[in-house]
Amino acid sequence: MSAATLFLNASEVVTCAGPGRARVGREMADAAVRSGVAVAVQDGLIAAVGDERELRARYRKAAEVDCAQGVLTPAFVDSHTHAIFGAPRAAEHELRASGLDYMEIARRGGGIHASVRDLRARSEDALYELALPRLLALSATGVGTVEVKSGYGLTLEDEVKSLRVVARLQATLPLRLVPTFLGAHEIPLEHRGSSASRREYVEQVVHDMIPLVAREGLAQFCDVFCETGVYSVEESRAILTAARQHGLGLKLHADELTACGGAELAAELRATSADHLAAVSDDGVRALAGAGTVATLLPATMLFLGKARQAPARALIDAGVPLALATDFNPGTSPTLSFPLVLTLAVSQLRLSVAEALVAGTVNGAAALGLAHETGQLAPGFSADLALFHARDHRELPYWLGARLCERVWIRGKPCP
Amino acid sequence: MSAATLFLNASEVVTCAGPGRARVGREMADAAVRSGVAVAVQDGLIAAVGDERELRARYRKAAEVDCAQGVLTPAFVDSHTHAIFGAPRAAEHELRASGLDYMEIARRGGGIHASVRDLRARSEDALYELALPRLLALSATGVGTVEVKSGYGLTLEDEVKSLRVVARLQATLPLRLVPTFLGAHEIPLEHRGSSASRREYVEQVVHDMIPLVAREGLAQFCDVFCETGVYSVEESRAILTAARQHGLGLKLHADELTACGGAELAAELRATSADHLAAVSDDGVRALAGAGTVATLLPATMLFLGKARQAPARALIDAGVPLALATDFNPGTSPTLSFPLVLTLAVSQLRLSVAEALVAGTVNGAAALGLAHETGQLAPGFSADLALFHARDHRELPYWLGARLCERVWIRGKPCP
Repeated sequence: MSAATLFLNASEVVTCAGPGRARVGREMADAAVRSGVAVAVQDGLIAAVGDERELRARYRKAAEVDCAQGVLTPAFVDSHTHAIFGAPRAAEHELRASGLDYMEIARRGGGIHASVRDLRARSEDALYELALPRLLALSATGVGTVEVKSGYGLTLEDEVKSLRVVARLQATLPLRLVPTFLGAHEIPLEHRGSSASRREYVEQVVHDMIPLVAREGLAQFCDVFCETGVYSVEESRAILTAARQHGLGLKLHADELTACGGAELAAELRATSADHLAAVSDDGVRALAGAGTVATLLPATMLFLGKARQAPARALIDAGVPLALATDFNPGTSPTLSFPLVLTLAVSQLRLSVAEALVAGTVNGAAALGLAHETGQLAPGFSADLALFHARDHRELPYWLGARLCERVWIRGKPCP
Repeated sequence: MSAATLFLNASEVVTCAGPGRARVGREMADAAVRSGVAVAVQDGLIAAVGDERELRARYRKAAEVDCAQGVLTPAFVDSHTHAIFGAPRAAEHELRASGLDYMEIARRGGGIHASVRDLRARSEDALYELALPRLLALSATGVGTVEVKSGYGLTLEDEVKSLRVVARLQATLPLRLVPTFLGAHEIPLEHRGSSASRREYVEQVVHDMIPLVAREGLAQFCDVFCETGVYSVEESRAILTAARQHGLGLKLHADELTACGGAELAAELRATSADHLAAVSDDGVRALAGAGTVATLLPATMLFLGKARQAPARALIDAGVPLALATDFNPGTSPTLSFPLVLTLAVSQLRLSVAEALVAGTVNGAAALGLAHETGQLAPGFSADLALFHARDHRELPYWLGARLCERVWIRGKPCP
C-alpha cells in the first residue's frame, strides 16, 4: 500500500457520489457538492471523502495538496472525440459562414474527405506528434478520460494506424483513453461510384476491419455515422451487429442533422450511447429511455456550425434518458479544446442546471464509456481522477465563459503534466 | 530615441494596415495579412513592417523577439466591458436556464440591482483587487485596449468610486484603459417609486454626475442603457446631449432586446458607437450607416443568455456600417474572459469572414473608442500594441474553439505581465 495523499482546503468538493451507473431524471439534479471536506487518495483510488480533521487524523503521514479554497471535482470524462487527425480545417470555417453547409462542403470533396486524404498521407509518428499536444490542451481544462475515435482512415491500414496512435498515446499519457473504431465515419470517395462499390466497403468494415480491430484489442467500441446521405439505418445495423458479435461496445452518431431513425436503432441494439441527437424525434427519445442508452450531447458542434437548433436536452432528461456531454473535438465541426465551455453551453443553450451539467460531464460521461463503476465520481473505491479549479463556487465553472480556471488534473492519483 | 525591437520569424503578420479610421463594407474583408515580414518597434511605436533581411540591416542593434512561426496581430481592442464589479452572479445563470428572463430577474431585484448593492458595499481598494486579475485574464487572451464602464454604482459617490478604480488600474497596468461613465445603466431601485423620483435620478445624472465626471477627467465617454423598461429614447437623448456639452464622447446600449429606436438615436446624435443591436430595425441600420456610427456587436452575450437571435451583422456590413466586436464582459449577461471566443462567434454565429472578424476586433474596435488613429493596426506610427499566437494561419484564431493560443501581448512596445 503506497502513502496516501490528502486534498485539503477546497471551498467545495463536487463529489457526484452515488451509484456507479448512469444517473437519470431527478438523480441528475444532484451533484452531491460538499463543503469543509477533504479527499484521501491511496493506491490511485479515492480512499475517503470526509471531515478534514478526521481524515488528517486517519492519514497522519499523508502527502498534502492544498486546494487553496478552489473547487475540486471528478476529472471530466470527454466521451466523444475524433482527436486523431492531421491538419486543422480552418478555411472551412469561413466557407461555412459564407453559406455553404456541411453536406455541400462534403460533396465538394472537402469536409471529412479532406481529413481522410490528409491522414492517409501521414505516418503513425506524425499523427502521434500532432495528437499529443492537442490532448494535453484538452486535458488541461479539467479532463481525465477521453474517448478517441478513428474514422479519417477509411481503409483497413489507415484505421489501424489511427488506433495504434491512440494506443501509443495511452502508453505515454496519464490520461485514460478509450479507443473507438469508426471505420464507418463516411463512405470513402473511392467507394462512391456504384452501390456495389459502396456495399463492398461496408463488407470490408464488417468482415475485415471489425474482426482485426477486435482481435488485436485496438478498440473498445464501434461507432457508425448514421445519417441521411452517409450510412443508412440498415447499413448501421449490419455494422454494429457484427461489432457486437466481436465483443465491441456500441455507439452511434444518431440524428445529428436529420431524424432518420438513429436513436431508434441505438435503442434497438441497446447501444451504450447515442450521440448528437440534435434532430431526434419524439419516438427516438422514447426509444432511448426504454433502452437505457446514454444520450451524449455535443453543443459545441451546433455552436461552431452556426446552427440555432440544439438537442432537446430537457425532453431527454424528462423522459428518463441519461444525458452525457462531450466536446466532439474534431477538425471540421468542433475544434473545441475546452470542456468547461461545453458546460457553459449546457446551461446557456441546453438549459440544464449546473448540477445536471456536472453530472453529465462526469458520471454520465463515464457511463457512455462503460466506466461508471470506475471514474466520474469522488467516492471510495473509484479511480482518483480529480480536477482543481480556481473558483469558490462550483457554479462558476460554467459561468466564467471562455475562462481558464483549471489549475491541475490528477489521474489515478498522479498529477498530469 | 530608445533601442529598437524586431519581431522576427512570424508565419504571418496580420497588419490590418490601412487608413486610421473605421473600415466599412469591402474594406472590412481585408486584414492585410503578410508573410515573411518583420515588425520593428521603437519608442513604443511601430517603426516599420517589411522584409526581414532589410529590417535586420536597418536596425542592427535591435533586440529581437522570435515569433517562432506564430501569428502576430495587432492586440485586440475590447471596446465594451463592465469590468468593475464585485461578486460574480453565477447563480443567475441557471435561474435563467430554468426559464426566467433578464427582465424578470431584474424585476425581482436581481440582475443589475444585485451588482449595484454589492458594489456600493465595497471599498475602492476591494474593487481594485477584484478587477485587476480579471483584466489580466482578459488581456492574456490577446487584448491590449479595454473600455471599462461604470454603472453598478448609480449614485454620484459610487459611480465616481468605480471610475477611480479604472484610473488606478490604468496607473498600474500596461493595458490601455478607456473609462466610460454609465450612470444611466439602470433606474436605481430607490428611484423607481414614482415618475418624479425617476426624473430626479435623470436630473442627477445630467446636472451632478456628468459635470463632475467630465471636470475631473474620470471618463472619456458617456453611455446609456436605452431599452424598453430601462431608459427611454427621450431620457437617453437628454443624458447624452448633456454629456456632449461637457466634452464626453457618446456611446449607447441600443436595441439589445427590443427595437426601441436606440440605433436611430445613436445616429441622430452621431454617437461614436451603438452597441448590442440584436433587435435593431431596418430603419436603425440605415440610420447608423448614414451617421458613421460604429456598430459594436457582442455575440457572447446572446450566447450566454441562451438567445437564438444574434445582431444582423451581414446586413450592417452590407449597409456600410463599420462593425466592431467586444466581449461585453460583465457579471450578469457575459462573464466572458476570452476575446478569441468572440471571434469564433463572429464567424460561426454572425457569419463574418475571418478577416472581417479580425478588422472588427482591432481597427474598428479602436474606432469605437475614437482611437483608430492610434491603435488597432501594425503600421508605422501606430502604437506598438501586438499579440502573438501559437498558430500558423490567422484563420486558426477563431477556429480553435475555446483554446488558449495567445502567448504574449505587448502594449506600447512593452510586454504585458
